[in-house]
Amino acid sequence: MSIIKPRLPKGMRDILPTKMALRQHVMATVERVFAEFGFEPLVTPAVELAEVLFGKYGEDAEKLFFMVEHPGGKEKLALRYDLSVPLSRLIAQYPDLPKPFRRYQIAPVWRAERPQRGRYREFYQCDADIVGSSSMLADGEIIALIYAILRRLGFEQFVILINDRKILTGMGHYSGVPDEHLPQLYRSIDKLDRIGPEGVRRELCNAGLDARAVDRLFALLRPASGAGQPTLDELREELADYPIAVEGVSELEELLSYLPALGVARDSYRVDLAMVRGLDYYTGPIFETIVEKPRIGSITGGGRFDGLVSRFSKRGYPATGTTIGIERIIDVMEDLDMCPSDVGETLVEVLVTVFSPALLNESLKLCTELRNSGLHCELYYGRKPLGGQIRYALKKAIPLLVILGPDELEAGQVMARDLRREIQVQVARSELVSLLREWLEGDRAE
Amino acid sequence: MSIIKPRLPKGMRDILPTKMALRQHVMATVERVFAEFGFEPLVTPAVELAEVLFGKYGEDAEKLFFMVEHPGGKEKLALRYDLSVPLSRLIAQYPDLPKPFRRYQIAPVWRAERPQRGRYREFYQCDADIVGSSSMLADGEIIALIYAILRRLGFEQFVILINDRKILTGMGHYSGVPDEHLPQLYRSIDKLDRIGPEGVRRELCNAGLDARAVDRLFALLRPASGAGQPTLDELREELADYPIAVEGVSELEELLSYLPALGVARDSYRVDLAMVRGLDYYTGPIFETIVEKPRIGSITGGGRFDGLVSRFSKRGYPATGTTIGIERIIDVMEDLDMCPSDVGETLVEVLVTVFSPALLNESLKLCTELRNSGLHCELYYGRKPLGGQIRYALKKAIPLLVILGPDELEAGQVMARDLRREIQVQVARSELVSLLREWLEGDRAE
Repeated sequence: MSIIKPRLPKGMRDILPTKMALRQHVMATVERVFAEFGFEPLVTPAVELAEVLFGKYGEDAEKLFFMVEHPGGKEKLALRYDLSVPLSRLIAQYPDLPKPFRRYQIAPVWRAERPQRGRYREFYQCDADIVGSSSMLADGEIIALIYAILRRLGFEQFVILINDRKILTGMGHYSGVPDEHLPQLYRSIDKLDRIGPEGVRRELCNAGLDARAVDRLFALLRPASGAGQPTLDELREELADYPIAVEGVSELEELLSYLPALGVARDSYRVDLAMVRGLDYYTGPIFETIVEKPRIGSITGGGRFDGLVSRFSKRGYPATGTTIGIERIIDVMEDLDMCPSDVGETLVEVLVTVFSPALLNESLKLCTELRNSGLHCELYYGRKPLGGQIRYALKKAIPLLVILGPDELEAGQVMARDLRREIQVQVARSELVSLLREWLEGDRAE
Repeated sequence: MSIIKPRLPKGMRDILPTKMALRQHVMATVERVFAEFGFEPLVTPAVELAEVLFGKYGEDAEKLFFMVEHPGGKEKLALRYDLSVPLSRLIAQYPDLPKPFRRYQIAPVWRAERPQRGRYREFYQCDADIVGSSSMLADGEIIALIYAILRRLGFEQFVILINDRKILTGMGHYSGVPDEHLPQLYRSIDKLDRIGPEGVRRELCNAGLDARAVDRLFALLRPASGAGQPTLDELREELADYPIAVEGVSELEELLSYLPALGVARDSYRVDLAMVRGLDYYTGPIFETIVEKPRIGSITGGGRFDGLVSRFSKRGYPATGTTIGIERIIDVMEDLDMCPSDVGETLVEVLVTVFSPALLNESLKLCTELRNSGLHCELYYGRKPLGGQIRYALKKAIPLLVILGPDELEAGQVMARDLRREIQVQVARSELVSLLREWLEGDRAE
């Protein structure tokens, strides 16, 4: 039998256990906050019918689809590209689901993009959406959810930017941009940070927009140096002749009025008329979180998308939600050393050593006791003497170890060692679990 | 834009939130026990190179592979068929991983089998394996792990059947079965329960085995009515001339000697010489759990597979492990109503009602308070009066609800209602969280 070279498809990765402790900490934290906000988990299959996915994301995205087939199968299949289109398919498919339907899903999606550092062809998305309510309370809760998740993960200096597609459309009308140019308008404004006002201006003029229209737009979006963007009150007055803009202003006013009672700190959000979000399907409030210090860019994005379900059903449903950029967040937390101190390289808490073959069964009993009390224990299997076992624990970064030699056994005691603090204590067997827990909780407190 | 009919590929499924509470309970319980036993999580990609998967499972299985490609991609790709071959690929690919390497993985696999009730083309596997130790302690810990998981999930009447491929090989030699017929021998014995001794006998004779050899084998495997299978001591004596059988007997003796200290109850395992496990790659002890009452068949399967990694590396590694049949376990627990009483149709614990639009912000504040204390709260968004809000909670099976009307607000109180016990209590705001928790924990205790 020939040996097959062990390797991965291009752009794919394994996530080894040493990376999993932080990853699980982030996922568990996010899931806990989702649960507190009344969101429930959902699983959809990785493989969808191609017809469900095609025609939703644009041609460029479709080139990145992974197609799936099995010999003899007649269906045209593909791996999902995101979690929003499968959600919309599901909402249309099960019309009896109670509304509002609040679900979260944390699951891989597949895109055959050119692999880059930190960007993979299989990566996890983490979405929370509320379907079936057009109330601004739903949008408010999405913002409160984002806030709660980021605070719980330890982020401090972030801003949730808020805007409304209806205001953007109204601003377009006000400036004289025809409806068919609105998507181009959104895409160009989206690049403001990257290509600057002059770049956006040039792009819009090249796209055939009237230079005066562009000027009029910029007067709103980026008024003369020094002045900030107009307030919602100013906007309502300036755009009074554009009902859609007025509607957007009212939506944001209502939405903003809920945030204090939902516990969102005032300095962690602001209206930004130049924030547009790339995707075409948004219809109302949109949200994006940027971390300003350190400057790491956008880590959540979302908004109201009242039209997506109607691609699968005559009956549409209003919907709003957000993606939490969980892969980016994990990378950032790792780079910035934001892991809680008890999240190390291993989830194993205690190595149970084996003093001698004659005492093996005693170590097994001890190990079983500790496991039954909920401690994460590895039993040493090798043949090395105690010194080698201690080196093994150090190499694997296991924080604690216990030794049960003949003297300890006779005295009803156990030797416990904290390898990080270099403490060793002989302790009564009945007190061992509390001592080990105290040491582990000390890490959390430090 | 035409409407696309919302539907799923053949044999695929969505798992709706009402099914997720039990599912998450099972997964979390299993993961907790894995952690206690020092197993760590691992993620491998869903998509593997076809060459990694082909040639490992046999031709019949290969017909069930889902093939993957993306336009312009040059690699031949497929969705994984199980978690063992990707693990073996990974072990060979990262030779520096510390050994023994104990990992668990709970993840979907894909097989284009004919869909049946309860059988899907995407389903979750749950594997725990220890790679890099040939010690019988590793096999003993796998059995202790299976025992702990099933007990923790609430299973009581189950038996872990234990056998050893070396004993089976020795029994084959003893009976005069040539080596090349051993795989056929295993496959036929595996059917003993289904096709009976006569069926197995017929199959073996048809496969070209000598009738006397078959008789000799059956005398060991299924002695004359009344007598049980030989003990390990009897087997050692009877098969003394077959070194591989003697080695297998010694392995099982050592393995069994560890189980009491590992906390495995004596009545929950037994040696069964007729248990063989279907897969070809086992090389030593093998394990399979059957639930005898109710008779639901096999729910775990595994064993030692010392050869699999060497398909990817000149350097082989001993390995042992088990699959926990998590989909089957979830189905069984649902059918037998084995869910803990606090695992209901929803993970939402409290509905925060809205007394009137004027009091909306007060309800938001209350909701935020309860969420910050860790309770799972849904805020009511609709426009129905209180009666309709209560019906909404009942329909969604949310157990508790809170009401904050003008009288309660003035008195610093909240009205709390337990919808399952039909109790309503007016309680000081400061005591609300403890009351709600008490009610929820009451469920757990009942």
